[in-house]
This record gives sequence, C-alpha cells and structure tokens, in this order.
Amino acid sequence: MIQVGILGLGTVGTGVVELIEKNNDIIEKRIGDRINIKKVLVKNINKRRSSLVEGKITDKFEDILEDEDISVVAEVMGGEEPALTYIRELLSRGKHVVTANKEVISEHGNELLKISAEKDVNLLFEASVGGGIPIIMPMKQCLSANDIVKVMGILNGTTNYILSQMTEKSESFSEALEKAQLEGCAESDPTNDVKGFDAARKLAILSSIAFNTRITPEQVYTEGIDNISHLDIEYARELGAVIKLIALGKKNENNIEVSVTPVLLKKDHPLASVSGTFNAIMVEGDAVGPVMFYGLGAGKMPTASAVVADIMEAVRNKNGSKLHCTCYNRLNVMDSGESVTSFYLRLRVFDRPGVLSKIAGAFGENQISLSKVFQKNTINGTAEIVMVTYDVPFKNLQEALDEIRAYKQVVEISTVIRVEGEC
Amino acid sequence: MIQVGILGLGTVGTGVVELIEKNNDIIEKRIGDRINIKKVLVKNINKRRSSLVEGKITDKFEDILEDEDISVVAEVMGGEEPALTYIRELLSRGKHVVTANKEVISEHGNELLKISAEKDVNLLFEASVGGGIPIIMPMKQCLSANDIVKVMGILNGTTNYILSQMTEKSESFSEALEKAQLEGCAESDPTNDVKGFDAARKLAILSSIAFNTRITPEQVYTEGIDNISHLDIEYARELGAVIKLIALGKKNENNIEVSVTPVLLKKDHPLASVSGTFNAIMVEGDAVGPVMFYGLGAGKMPTASAVVADIMEAVRNKNGSKLHCTCYNRLNVMDSGESVTSFYLRLRVFDRPGVLSKIAGAFGENQISLSKVFQKNTINGTAEIVMVTYDVPFKNLQEALDEIRAYKQVVEISTVIRVEGEC
Repeated sequence: MIQVGILGLGTVGTGVVELIEKNNDIIEKRIGDRINIKKVLVKNINKRRSSLVEGKITDKFEDILEDEDISVVAEVMGGEEPALTYIRELLSRGKHVVTANKEVISEHGNELLKISAEKDVNLLFEASVGGGIPIIMPMKQCLSANDIVKVMGILNGTTNYILSQMTEKSESFSEALEKAQLEGCAESDPTNDVKGFDAARKLAILSSIAFNTRITPEQVYTEGIDNISHLDIEYARELGAVIKLIALGKKNENNIEVSVTPVLLKKDHPLASVSGTFNAIMVEGDAVGPVMFYGLGAGKMPTASAVVADIMEAVRNKNGSKLHCTCYNRLNVMDSGESVTSFYLRLRVFDRPGVLSKIAGAFGENQISLSKVFQKNTINGTAEIVMVTYDVPFKNLQEALDEIRAYKQVVEISTVIRVEGEC
Repeated sequence: MIQVGILGLGTVGTGVVELIEKNNDIIEKRIGDRINIKKVLVKNINKRRSSLVEGKITDKFEDILEDEDISVVAEVMGGEEPALTYIRELLSRGKHVVTANKEVISEHGNELLKISAEKDVNLLFEASVGGGIPIIMPMKQCLSANDIVKVMGILNGTTNYILSQMTEKSESFSEALEKAQLEGCAESDPTNDVKGFDAARKLAILSSIAFNTRITPEQVYTEGIDNISHLDIEYARELGAVIKLIALGKKNENNIEVSVTPVLLKKDHPLASVSGTFNAIMVEGDAVGPVMFYGLGAGKMPTASAVVADIMEAVRNKNGSKLHCTCYNRLNVMDSGESVTSFYLRLRVFDRPGVLSKIAGAFGENQISLSKVFQKNTINGTAEIVMVTYDVPFKNLQEALDEIRAYKQVVEISTVIRVEGEC
C-alpha cells in the first residue's frame, strides 16, 4: 500500500479522495500497488466529513510531515501560504509532493524544484495549469526535442464562460458574470479571473517550461475582460471574429513576450471554437509545428484526475530520474510597449466635421496604418468609430491614443483589443 | 555522449538526423548529454547521403546490434519485416528501442513489450500514432487515474486531406486523391490510407492502451472513404454535418467496440473542424471528461519530434521504472453487427409509386425508425432518396438493406454512413 497524505479537503481534495476510492483497482493494476489515504489535513476538525475520510482527519500539519509511512503528499489547499511552507518542509523531509497550486508554483516553483532536486524526490504539478488537460508533462517530455517558439491558450474557464455567454446569448458582461456566479463557475469575488491574474499565473508556469527561463506572473502584461462590451462582441462578429482572453508566450530573437489580454480571433482559428468552461493550449515547436491540448480546465474531478495521476507518477518514478527545474536560460522579458500586433479600437466622438481626419492624423504621426474604419450608431450627437490597425508597436498606439484622448471632439476611447491574424 | 543507432534513412530517418543536429544544444541542456548518431542502417550503401551521416552508414544490422556503445536505437524503416526481427533482437540485447512503426506495434507490441520488461529497457513508440502529437505517453501517464471509456479521432492525414478537399473545393474523391498524391500526402498506392487500414492500426494501438486489453488491427471493423461521393458531402452539409474518417474505440459494459468508418459529424463537434492533414484524438475518462490532442499526424519533422523525444526519454528513464505492456484485461471485442448508432443512407430507386412505402416497410420490419427522409435529384426516371435513421443495431440495418437491395425498384444502395449525434 502506498501511504498518501492530503493537504486540504475542499472541492479538489474531495475529488481526489473520491477518485482514489473509485479507481483504486485500476490504480493497483497500473502501478502495482493500491493507494491508501492515511491522513487528511483540514482547518476545521469538527466539520462533518464523508465516511471515506473517517479517522483520517487532522488539523496538525506535523501529523503528516512526521509520518514516516507517508511517502507522497498531495497539496490541494490552494493559496500561497501556508501551502508554500508546507511543500517546502515536505520536500525537505524527502517526501514526494504533487500540487494543484498555481500561486505557489508560478511564484516559487524555482525554489521548490531546487529542493526536490537536492532531495531527489518528485515535485509534480500537472493540475496547476489546465485542470485535467495533460500539458506540463507532454511539454517537458513529449515535446522536449523541440525548440518551443510559442504557447497560446485559453487558460481560464470562468472568463471563457463569460465571453461565450456574451457571444452566444448576447448578454452584457455583468449579466454573464452573474450567471457564472450562480452556476458556480465564478467566485463571489471574481477579480482573479476577470482581471486575468489567474491566467497570468498559469502562463508564467507554461512559459517557464516552454522557454526554459524563469517567468513570474508579475512579468506578464495582463488585461482583464471587464472592459469588454457586448458592442465589441457584436462588432467582432461583423469582422468574422470572436473575442477570447488569450494567454500568449512568444520567443523572439532576443527576448520573450508574455501577455494575457482579450484578443479578436478569426472564427476559423483553432482556439475560436473553444467555448464555455473549456480550456485549450496551443504549443508551437520548431519540429512538431502547432499542437493543441483541449479539455476542462478546472472542476472537481478533472483536477483530481491530474492530481491522482501525479501521485501515481511520483510512485512509479520514485527511483528514476526526476524532472526538476528546466529554467537553464536567462531570457529577458520584452516590454509590453514593444509588442507588435494589430489592434481593434472603439471610440466615441462628437459627430462633427473634421473629427475623423484629426484622429487619422494622430495615427499617421505615429506610423499607424488602418486596415478598416467604420462608423457605427450615432446617438445624441455622438458617433461610434470602430477601427482596425495594421501591425504596430503597442507604444506607438498608446502615444497616438494619448493624443486622441486629449481632443475635445473625442468623448472616450472605449476599448482597445489586440487582433490575432487578419480581421 | 549518448551513442544512438538509427535503422532507416527515409523521410523520417532523415528528419531524426536533422533534428538532432539542429537541437543538440537544447537536448544537452535538457537531458545532460549530447546525442551522437553513431551508425545508420540503410539498404543501399552506395546512395548519395547528407554530410550529416558521413562515415556512419552501414548496410549490416549487426554493426548496430553488436556495438556495445550504442544504448538506444531508433527504428524508422517502417513495414513489418525486417523491422520486427531487428527490434526483437535489439531489445533482447538490452538496448532501448524507440520506433515510429505502427505495423509492428499494432501487431506485435504485446510480445515486444514483454521482452522490454524482461530486459528492463525502454520500448517507446509515441511516433506510431498521431505523428508528433503527444498521445501515448499522456494516456499512459497523465490520464492514468481514469477509467477511459472512449477514444475517438481522426488518425489518418491523407484521408482527412481528401475529405477536406472534397468538402471545401467540391472535388470528387478521385480528383482529391490525385491532388493528395501530387502534393506528397498520399502514396502512389493509397490503399492503406483510403481503405482505413492505417487508421485501424493506430486505433488498435490506442485502444489497447486506453482499455488495457489487447486489440489487433484485424479486430477493428474497418470501412474506407473510397465509396464517399461528393453528393454525400453535399447532403451532409445540408444536414449541418461534415464527413470524416473516424476511428472509434468505446468501452461498453461487457465488451469493446472498435471501428474505423466514415462518420457524419455535426459541424459543432470538436473533430468536425479538424481539416487538411491535421489529426486529432479525443479521449474520454471517467474523471477528466473529454480531452483532445491535435496536431500534424505525419510528416518528416513532426514525426522526428516524437522519435527524438522518445530517445531522450529512454535516456532519462534508463534506470527508472519503465512503462511496459499495460494490457492486463481480457475484454471481448463486440461484433460490428451489435454496434448501435444512427445511419445516413443514400439510395437510387426507379421513380414509381409505392417504392418508398416498400422501403419503409423493410425498415419497419427490422425495427428501424427514420428521423429524416428526403428525395433528391431525379434523373432518367430514377430518384435519389436520402434517409437518416434513429439509433439501430448495425445488423438490423444490414438485414433491412439486404431486403431492399433485392427489390427490383431499387437501382442501388449508394452509401451507408454512420452518424455521430443527431443530424
């Protein structure tokens, strides 16, 4: 019997307990031994729990840390502390650790993987990105002969659900958010999701692996989706595109570009049809070309699927050569202003002669060419102008927009959204 | 330096040589050592070769087999023999083997994995299914906590290219095949691809892994695409569907269903938008739900990507616990007649009163309900009837069609195609 400890018994922890119970026969056939959950760490020891964990509950971390029988611990409590401290101590004691914790791995993976290397134990974190979708091990192993040049994906199910609702049901952002909260796929404080912070953490993990250089969430240029209006969704549709929150990591000649932003994607782009709470990640290697991984990026059982597989892998590979930190490069992160792409813009202006020529002038001065301009609905003497630029450095666009914002004929610059490919 | 032998220097072999040359610095950083291709087995030693293999060419297998320095051998010659004999001998000598050979693995993987287990060496074959797409290792490791209930995919790029051309360019089967041959994505003898045999081999490999039971290509019910007319493509479009050659493995309560057949897929099915030479594989697990893997399923560099990654994995894992045969179950394969699905039918009949009622009668007698019937173009006194049935066991349909075929009012039963979901 493999003795396992679990930290945390929330949604994912409960899923892990249930999945091991359900599939222990399969697990035994696949790795030659059954898993026994010996102890589960919880905050409140008095809460009623499932009979599956009867007699296993503890509120003392030391009960797990100091149990010599426990060789593998799954950390599924989430949040930075005390998870970080616990993982550090478990690894230092020579225990294998598997975790679903994107906060800890994106900020401290580097330090923790050094400890796992020193102690020759496995530290696995497949569940930290994309829920149950196999992505980290495939990148570290199956694609390891490639120079990976790009990762691009939908890494947050909540925002993808909201954008899908806005697109398919013509809902406003706040209606769609409310629905997501009612259906349990958005938290009551949705900041981390809608502002893009959750996706930025996951992108930091993926980019660090893809480009073999340490990328932290703070280095990811991040925009959320809370500024996207149903008008943008509608105009995107007219352009043959959809709006998705896209995490993008790209290797340039001298640096790495990492961003999480809303993006207009042409309808035939493989990521455009990824809807609802599904996630998808495209990885582009110099040999393999583009490959895509798709599935449920969160949820109790999909996440448990990755956590339990990691427990099995930690056991299988206990005497083998482990995958530790692969950040052997030191690559610079590009300043977001240098990022070159085309942009979709929506502006509201007073409907007077000469406004458009003034705006066009500001673009011209900053070497920005426009591929599309159209005037939309006019209300109360103001008109809406939608424009799509050709490729331009973001900082040139920002300068032009600063000038334009200062014109008294301009009511507001409503939205600025990146465009992938030609729209 | 890791000394590697290569069997075969065709397209894939050349890709492997070039990729190792190109990315050897990356490989060294990732596995701690460079790869040196020490010997390459070819048939014709007098042919002009790239300078990359100068002084390494041999036409004697023993030069590789008996070279004590060579620890890993990549078999990329293809075909059953002599590849099978070579792999058997290499494993028996304690060498790690990686192969892209679907013929050998689908028919003899079982035997070869037993030898690899006895000798405690790695036998890896990621490239045998889906080219560079990570699928075998993700299934064996990342999804190993799941009871896998279904695999479904587009496993043959040639037929997918042909069907895509027929769909997008309204070409006939033979026009599209000719184009595929001109562009090098179909062989001069296209039988293995268009008859579904290639996909059946890949499905046998995937199903054996997914369901942990040995499935051979002969057990896969296989239909090709050479019977599909542009009319079927057109009528599918009218039904909101596309036609794809789908490999399907499904676990039922008491058996396994394995088939490679053309299938009408609703346009919003994730596999429906996989076009050209791309492959995609959906795997459904009890915990993870559906996950999909997508990419180029063949070609020089995508396949080399998987072969070289397997070489790296064999090195990394030389002292670890290996993944050997996982077929610990003995599950029956369902007779294709028992398979229950709905069907699309196209018939040509003499345009006389009572024909439809006779046909409908035969369906009724065999407990077949129709969800859609429409009469299409009438030419020279014959009419085309298109029907979609509700779910029905294939054998009932076959009985009904045998009766219908015997009616003198029926000119021909032109096509019978399975339908996934509701059309």
